Amino acid sequence: MAPLRVALTQALGVAQVLAGDDCVPYMTDWRKQYSGRALAVVRPGNAEEVATVVRLCAQHGAPVVPQGGNTGQVGGATPDASGRSVVVLLSRLNRIRGIDTDNDTITVEAGCILQAVQDAARAAGRLFPLSLGAEGSCMIGGNLASNAGGTQVLRYGNARELTLGLEVVTAEGDVWHGLRGLRKDNTGYDLRDLYIGSEGTLGIITAATLKLHPLPVAQRTALVALGSVERAVAFLARARARLGASLTAFELISRPCIELVTRAYPQQRLPFAAASSPWYVLLELSDSESEAHARAQFETALGAALEAGEIEDAAISESAAQSEALWRLRESITLAVAGEGKCIKHDISLPLSRMAVFVRSTDAELQRAFPGIRNMTFGHLGDGNLHYNLVKMAGQSDDAFIARQSEVCRLVHDSVHAHAGSISAEQGVGRTRVDDLPRYKDELELALMRRIKRALDPQGIMNPGKVLKQEAE
Amino acid sequence: MAPLRVALTQALGVAQVLAGDDCVPYMTDWRKQYSGRALAVVRPGNAEEVATVVRLCAQHGAPVVPQGGNTGQVGGATPDASGRSVVVLLSRLNRIRGIDTDNDTITVEAGCILQAVQDAARAAGRLFPLSLGAEGSCMIGGNLASNAGGTQVLRYGNARELTLGLEVVTAEGDVWHGLRGLRKDNTGYDLRDLYIGSEGTLGIITAATLKLHPLPVAQRTALVALGSVERAVAFLARARARLGASLTAFELISRPCIELVTRAYPQQRLPFAAASSPWYVLLELSDSESEAHARAQFETALGAALEAGEIEDAAISESAAQSEALWRLRESITLAVAGEGKCIKHDISLPLSRMAVFVRSTDAELQRAFPGIRNMTFGHLGDGNLHYNLVKMAGQSDDAFIARQSEVCRLVHDSVHAHAGSISAEQGVGRTRVDDLPRYKDELELALMRRIKRALDPQGIMNPGKVLKQEAE
Repeated sequence: MAPLRVALTQALGVAQVLAGDDCVPYMTDWRKQYSGRALAVVRPGNAEEVATVVRLCAQHGAPVVPQGGNTGQVGGATPDASGRSVVVLLSRLNRIRGIDTDNDTITVEAGCILQAVQDAARAAGRLFPLSLGAEGSCMIGGNLASNAGGTQVLRYGNARELTLGLEVVTAEGDVWHGLRGLRKDNTGYDLRDLYIGSEGTLGIITAATLKLHPLPVAQRTALVALGSVERAVAFLARARARLGASLTAFELISRPCIELVTRAYPQQRLPFAAASSPWYVLLELSDSESEAHARAQFETALGAALEAGEIEDAAISESAAQSEALWRLRESITLAVAGEGKCIKHDISLPLSRMAVFVRSTDAELQRAFPGIRNMTFGHLGDGNLHYNLVKMAGQSDDAFIARQSEVCRLVHDSVHAHAGSISAEQGVGRTRVDDLPRYKDELELALMRRIKRALDPQGIMNPGKVLKQEAE
Repeated sequence: MAPLRVALTQALGVAQVLAGDDCVPYMTDWRKQYSGRALAVVRPGNAEEVATVVRLCAQHGAPVVPQGGNTGQVGGATPDASGRSVVVLLSRLNRIRGIDTDNDTITVEAGCILQAVQDAARAAGRLFPLSLGAEGSCMIGGNLASNAGGTQVLRYGNARELTLGLEVVTAEGDVWHGLRGLRKDNTGYDLRDLYIGSEGTLGIITAATLKLHPLPVAQRTALVALGSVERAVAFLARARARLGASLTAFELISRPCIELVTRAYPQQRLPFAAASSPWYVLLELSDSESEAHARAQFETALGAALEAGEIEDAAISESAAQSEALWRLRESITLAVAGEGKCIKHDISLPLSRMAVFVRSTDAELQRAFPGIRNMTFGHLGDGNLHYNLVKMAGQSDDAFIARQSEVCRLVHDSVHAHAGSISAEQGVGRTRVDDLPRYKDELELALMRRIKRALDPQGIMNPGKVLKQEAE
């Protein structure tokens, strides 16, 4: 047995160093894009044990690959093929350490499932607003390592904006006790935000103190039909001005997505006679007053938009069940699109002022280069974030389509870059985008990132090959 | 003439390299706590010229001291006594580079006066919410370098949360073009937040892309009288739950502050018969609906708090003039307190759950150690931030009082630390708190900060001696 494996077993006990088939689930990302091998898969039970693992890996020069719920989109938690890595599962660090309702904070360990954090907050009469598709299985540590976004960013911000303090195991196996519950603290460099979004390449987040918000008194949802992305952007400005911070979601959906969903799931119906408009927006209003006020607010805002000709039709949910049905429509897109075969996905963001011209020009460029390719565009328009996804033309084989994936991505990302956007809005870099990053990020910024990597992880053992290309040894 | 001075004059022209008496205003901080000397005071006109200055300083090994409006509280912009530093004034970088109303962003240069940024936003029908006492003279670059707070943090966050992108001149005199206008961008390490709040010790911020918000339709202010800090914290929770994000300010004021203000400025009156309660809260409501709605919202929230016995009295402003009068009461505290002689100031933050016990126990400890010392406590309670200020007992001389300043600070800061708070909520470290920092920050965090400093400023020329103690050469 490898000396490092022996040392890990001595430190954690044999039950927490997985072997054989027990390791398999952790060697592959959930989308089955990446597969690797590991020297060991370990399950430390607390931050001190995580620190011990990292110290042992540092002594043996072994790469450390932290893994939470393994729900990432970019292969950030999968080991490489070398078989030298130690995969560190955070799942046993799953305690809610405390809720401070006076301070509106919750302190949780990295292995807590996101939904468990939401539930604990709700049980204390508070809202933890981070919300995304994988919330039933993703872990908060992974959410923070990747600065997760989701559907409520418009109002509450990304994972970064929801975090006040961190506990982190450094690349040398020390524990930084930075679990502060303070809204204001200007006593030095912002290490917190450096670790958030660094995808495990600078250290391992083992716990966090997170902001809580008041629970809304009433929530309403509306679906709106519109003629263009320009109008959706204008309507967003109107909705923000009229509804203020009560506007908690603003999701754009293109007609092809709506059509796929209603065809794949006939029980899911549009609240309109037909999908006759090219674009739709799902809005959510979270009200601190009453159901009646929420309804009146929506009616005023949507009425004014109808009158201005900004929107073509609108339906407001009359009940929680109707709200859920509208959200289900939105959430079914990914599965409905998957029914069309392989999908080429892009998680991009743009300044809202460039959104319409980006969509129009990129759609057209794609048709010229890949005739018949189908756009399945939707996303968090309120944050300037599109899931700009593409499926093959009718009759094309999956293999023929995927063979051109890198050309398609190149065209889309070049266009994003030309419109001052980002090639990864919320999913991160991981392995998927590490080779493309130098094309779109200026050399100086990458050089500064490499300096920080060397400063905080001089041995280069933390999740190597993610975010930054591995430097030649 | 020193060779560096010659080179700077060649690069910028003689008019932009100040000499003699012209340099005097920049050698001392506005509170006249620190005074230094400089090899040169230069006024570059754009980011490229800032970069040239830094490159020349790097070549000559000269310290670089960036200076904005020189309104900081902690000596962060004042050169040391060596006379080797080059003070870099940002005042000529004062262009509003652009406003993008569709994207709700404004791009400004570091030398823009904060008020000019607010005004430009307002002229475009938008709100730039950063607001603080010095807004008529402080510069946005300094606000970002020190992660400024102010009165609207409760709703809109610190300067950090208002910033999307930066342009920065690095310690080697390169220009990082990071002026992104994106709400979501997960493509690598968060350099933006590392430069924000680093007080010019890692690089010089030369421009920023900032978030704008909708202008409120109506604003109302209320003054409330309460019996204790506990009740103020409970009332804050109620107000947040009821008013949601419309609650844009929640300022605590102690009776002694009110008494000083009304005595110093007899035209300023309390809206109550007498200052019979020990604590007061100034609330501001920013409404996206109407004056009537704002008024009704306040009445409901304050009515419920009165009924619950949380508050003792409440007065809602009936006009913009009345709102201004209430704000003037709050803003006059600093000057009124100054009328009592030297003041020992602390800018601290605490978890809200510890606020009441902190105030009670620290007040008592101070009385035991310094009998007769007078508390003039006020601050941004909504953010857990107190200006915990102290004036001498009646009859004591300024000198006798100030002689004990370090003892007083020690007692207060030790108590803050014991209650899990921060010794610098919004003002930064600068020179004032650099020696105290190691007492309150764990050694590992300081070590990580030093690594980052060395990684981004290997020569140690950027604003040395601020934030981190200068390492032995």
